[in-house]
Amino acid sequence: MAILFQSSADRWADWQPPLTALLPGEEFRLHPGTGDPASIEFAVVWKPPIGLLASLPNLKGVLSLGAGVDHILADPTLPPNVPVVRLLDPSLAAQMAEYVTLAVLAHHRRRGDYAAQQRDGVWRVLDAPGATRRRIGIMGFGMLGEACAARLMPFGFPLAGWVRHAQTAEGVRMFAGTEQLAAFLACSDILVCLLPLTPATHGILNARALALLPNGAAVINVARGAHVVVDDLLAALESGHLSGATLDVFADEPLAPGHPLWHHPKVTVTPHIAAITRPAHAAPIIADTIQRLRAGRPVAGVVNRHKGY
Amino acid sequence: MAILFQSSADRWADWQPPLTALLPGEEFRLHPGTGDPASIEFAVVWKPPIGLLASLPNLKGVLSLGAGVDHILADPTLPPNVPVVRLLDPSLAAQMAEYVTLAVLAHHRRRGDYAAQQRDGVWRVLDAPGATRRRIGIMGFGMLGEACAARLMPFGFPLAGWVRHAQTAEGVRMFAGTEQLAAFLACSDILVCLLPLTPATHGILNARALALLPNGAAVINVARGAHVVVDDLLAALESGHLSGATLDVFADEPLAPGHPLWHHPKVTVTPHIAAITRPAHAAPIIADTIQRLRAGRPVAGVVNRHKGY
Repeated sequence: MAILFQSSADRWADWQPPLTALLPGEEFRLHPGTGDPASIEFAVVWKPPIGLLASLPNLKGVLSLGAGVDHILADPTLPPNVPVVRLLDPSLAAQMAEYVTLAVLAHHRRRGDYAAQQRDGVWRVLDAPGATRRRIGIMGFGMLGEACAARLMPFGFPLAGWVRHAQTAEGVRMFAGTEQLAAFLACSDILVCLLPLTPATHGILNARALALLPNGAAVINVARGAHVVVDDLLAALESGHLSGATLDVFADEPLAPGHPLWHHPKVTVTPHIAAITRPAHAAPIIADTIQRLRAGRPVAGVVNRHKGY
Repeated sequence: MAILFQSSADRWADWQPPLTALLPGEEFRLHPGTGDPASIEFAVVWKPPIGLLASLPNLKGVLSLGAGVDHILADPTLPPNVPVVRLLDPSLAAQMAEYVTLAVLAHHRRRGDYAAQQRDGVWRVLDAPGATRRRIGIMGFGMLGEACAARLMPFGFPLAGWVRHAQTAEGVRMFAGTEQLAAFLACSDILVCLLPLTPATHGILNARALALLPNGAAVINVARGAHVVVDDLLAALESGHLSGATLDVFADEPLAPGHPLWHHPKVTVTPHIAAITRPAHAAPIIADTIQRLRAGRPVAGVVNRHKGY
């Protein structure tokens, strides 16, 4: 039995040393060199081609190379009873917390406005409220959301979280479900989207939702591009209702040349770098997951197909 | 007896309500309307004119409206035995920690490079080490330095501090005195200057010091412009030895139009806004200091004239 690795070819060079060191008895196959499909026991994947996983009759587990699994669940032929496991990597959470804290502080301290003043050679102090009057709303509150909240809390920002099913978090005002979404948005001066992409969250940041944010709010999307209706976001920036946006993810990546987001003065664009899976940190988690799945032991991060994450 | 307030005239409008509310029995005079110099008991000042304080024969205390006192000690006629008190304001420390964390994360996550890529419409992932391999060095470790270290520590950055006289701080590698300055600089991938400006620290970030920083280091100055020898900094940026600088303070403020710092691609300029004294937060501290000085009770922040802070 073998383990199939499927990502871009240049990634295998980084993954091979730690994975083979951690799983010394295993045979790895690099997609598309799958060999006998019946010999594949586990698949470690990123954006697998439609039908690939269905072609493996003895598959016992699918492991995502990232925190999201939407790229796996999007395959309508995905075998229904094979566990799909998202990557719960503290290194991803740490990077995400860096990126989100940077983006939150940049909006809070009006870094974009000061950069514009610097370009114009203008020396002028701009008004800004203190942290205790800048409310941060975090959509999605798993490992990544918790890490962001932990870094933001010492600054004194009032924190809120929005989740699908009611949960609690110390020092964070939690909202749950569609019925509390409007109340959550209304107290989010800076909105951070960390949601999984599911049919229920696709396009969730649309004109109606953005209109519910306080006037002057900023939006940070580090989840999936499809969470945001870009035309609605641009309209809310144009109208002045939103003061800015920081976007690391886009429905189509790379972001197309000439796309209006590239050059919008109120938008910061980065090339999906908020949290990059690092083989040195993630390979031990993936190796441990494979060993647990094989031994029938409990595994963290197994996806609930109904919820989609 | 009366209290003299000396700052720019427009600041008094913000200070008058909280100060008069907190010190209801006191008479305030707004410089230059000093009245009888012999009637002034305390002076609350920002950049007082040379000779002003020496003209007040019954002065019992000088209170700075900011964290620094270099603007007071620079007056050679300053009466030698009057206590000078710097403002120890947790609100200043909180703002400074926001600004420094933002600047540190911006250098750490290469925000300037990504902004340049955005301007050019370039989608490319840039290399960056994890936080555990990015060493932060903080020069000056009083209330402000401690607040910055407390916010940076949860990210996992290795932290070092440099002070005049040996002190300890949990989780921070401390260096002291000129004999340990080189060792401190050598382990500062991102250097944060929070020093008081004194004859011993004037021009401390000169060519020799900057050369001791690791290759690719970044410099953040939020103390006083005169700590940095700007021509040396520009040379170190030009040579590629330094990767960037964030400067909030300048020897002459406002920064002169056309100054090369305004438009240097590796330099972020802000108009001395890292930590702005807010009357609502600082007035209670100033009122308490006046009451303590008058009662002969202990006062925090009394300046050691020999050390200069």
